[in-house]
Amino acid sequence: MSGYVRPTTVIHSSRLNALLGQEVVIASETFQETGSFKFRATWNLVNQVPHPAVIAASSGNFGQALARACQLTGKSCTVVMPETSAKVKIEAVRRYGARVDLINTETISRADRVAELQQEDPSAYIASAYDDEHVIRGNATLGRELARLDPLPDVVVVPIGGGGLASGVITGLNEAGANMEVVGAEPALANDAARSLRAGEIVRNLSEPQTIADGARTVSVGMLNWPILSRGLAGIVEVSEEQICQALRLLFSAANVKVEPTGALSIGALLADPERFRGRRVCCVLSGGNVDPDLYARLITG
Amino acid sequence: MSGYVRPTTVIHSSRLNALLGQEVVIASETFQETGSFKFRATWNLVNQVPHPAVIAASSGNFGQALARACQLTGKSCTVVMPETSAKVKIEAVRRYGARVDLINTETISRADRVAELQQEDPSAYIASAYDDEHVIRGNATLGRELARLDPLPDVVVVPIGGGGLASGVITGLNEAGANMEVVGAEPALANDAARSLRAGEIVRNLSEPQTIADGARTVSVGMLNWPILSRGLAGIVEVSEEQICQALRLLFSAANVKVEPTGALSIGALLADPERFRGRRVCCVLSGGNVDPDLYARLITG
Repeated sequence: MSGYVRPTTVIHSSRLNALLGQEVVIASETFQETGSFKFRATWNLVNQVPHPAVIAASSGNFGQALARACQLTGKSCTVVMPETSAKVKIEAVRRYGARVDLINTETISRADRVAELQQEDPSAYIASAYDDEHVIRGNATLGRELARLDPLPDVVVVPIGGGGLASGVITGLNEAGANMEVVGAEPALANDAARSLRAGEIVRNLSEPQTIADGARTVSVGMLNWPILSRGLAGIVEVSEEQICQALRLLFSAANVKVEPTGALSIGALLADPERFRGRRVCCVLSGGNVDPDLYARLITG
Repeated sequence: MSGYVRPTTVIHSSRLNALLGQEVVIASETFQETGSFKFRATWNLVNQVPHPAVIAASSGNFGQALARACQLTGKSCTVVMPETSAKVKIEAVRRYGARVDLINTETISRADRVAELQQEDPSAYIASAYDDEHVIRGNATLGRELARLDPLPDVVVVPIGGGGLASGVITGLNEAGANMEVVGAEPALANDAARSLRAGEIVRNLSEPQTIADGARTVSVGMLNWPILSRGLAGIVEVSEEQICQALRLLFSAANVKVEPTGALSIGALLADPERFRGRRVCCVLSGGNVDPDLYARLITG
């Protein structure tokens, strides 16, 4: 059943290590099917639920990954996106045969539109990009892979948005009996998970934070993710927008790795808090690589 | 002895395959030590020759790879470069502890300056980037790796400049008993190897051809490479400058792979002559990823 999920790509860069003053092993999900870790989640989800149709709201990697998983399994897929979404993102979902439902977010919320669509087709499964048991279990396959790294890292750094990837990695590592530290890397502009850890309960952003790491523009972590994160995370490093961009540039110039801004968060965490990682063997998970060429061009020359 | 040489990175991209209408497996040397296949050559070379010092002329990946191999083995290294070389390229060689010897190419040729330097230090080994037995044997390690791909490709496409990589890959495949076809990918602007194959003898360009694939700006293939290429190559596909750029963009947008223009030649060959590869399982070797951010930004947005 994991036939379409590719193993993570392990990359060492002695030049990146020299620049960071730090031994890093990169686990890159940029070469995963559809270009991000999200396919691990959607592939597991569409294979676990019996529903012939799946509906989700997503303008990013989850929508593409869900469309592709449904295409491969012959399920019908509808992705709700704001009508202001970039054309390339709409095309990316349509490319995999999914129906794109464009909404005016000033007249209806994504959640309300998803609910409407489900009333039209009660046989459909409503998929959350992170707050779903099947999503967490799908992402756990990455944790199990990281538990087989040789040598084992002392600490794994994982980007945090809704917490689906981090809770999956923690789950997979635990299942494999690996008890290295897991640290989250979150945009400082969207630090609801860091504030949640400090408060001991889920804290919400008032609106979607406009960080350049668009994969982490979530209002809060999910209900299912929270107990796993609060028990399993050793901490969260808050990464500034400038550090995200600097990490993206470092990966380009020193390691020849193309990432999207969200994918640069884990390396950004090493820039934000180097003392935390000094002298330890660090594995940085790069969550995805899909980024608009104009934005990427501006970031690498900026 | 191969401790510092990393295995090639195997990448599948179903989206790239769909766009090319062709099943491709990518063997990327962009994550090799120093960012290109050249380190396979220089690592073998510095470990095979007893000389305490190595001298070479190179303004590109070979210079960096040689400097790094010498740094790791405690040998002294001098790289002759035109004083007009980009600062980043000079810095890249110095970063690995090598001496950079800047010359005015209007008053002395690179070869003459290398000869001068050898007279100053007769204990030094003069390394050619391609026309050297140790270089070919070092690059053969990639051929042996490709012979272990599962499933085996029907055809391997390899960029051609001086012919060091192609002759190495042919040698390694032969040693491993793998007899798939090997096809060269050469810039049409610098098609001396294609013309050589047609003529049955080495044909030289009158001057260094100014293709964007700067790793293939060689006047001719080497004397040691030629007999291997003329017997071992099934053919050479000539790739236009526009196809090189289009291939680089495809790798960026469909496969999340960052390559330098020379590294895009093998995918460019599929664009140049799709009929040659139709229905066959193709392995494309991406030779390296080191490219100036300004140039890369222009290429992906162009």
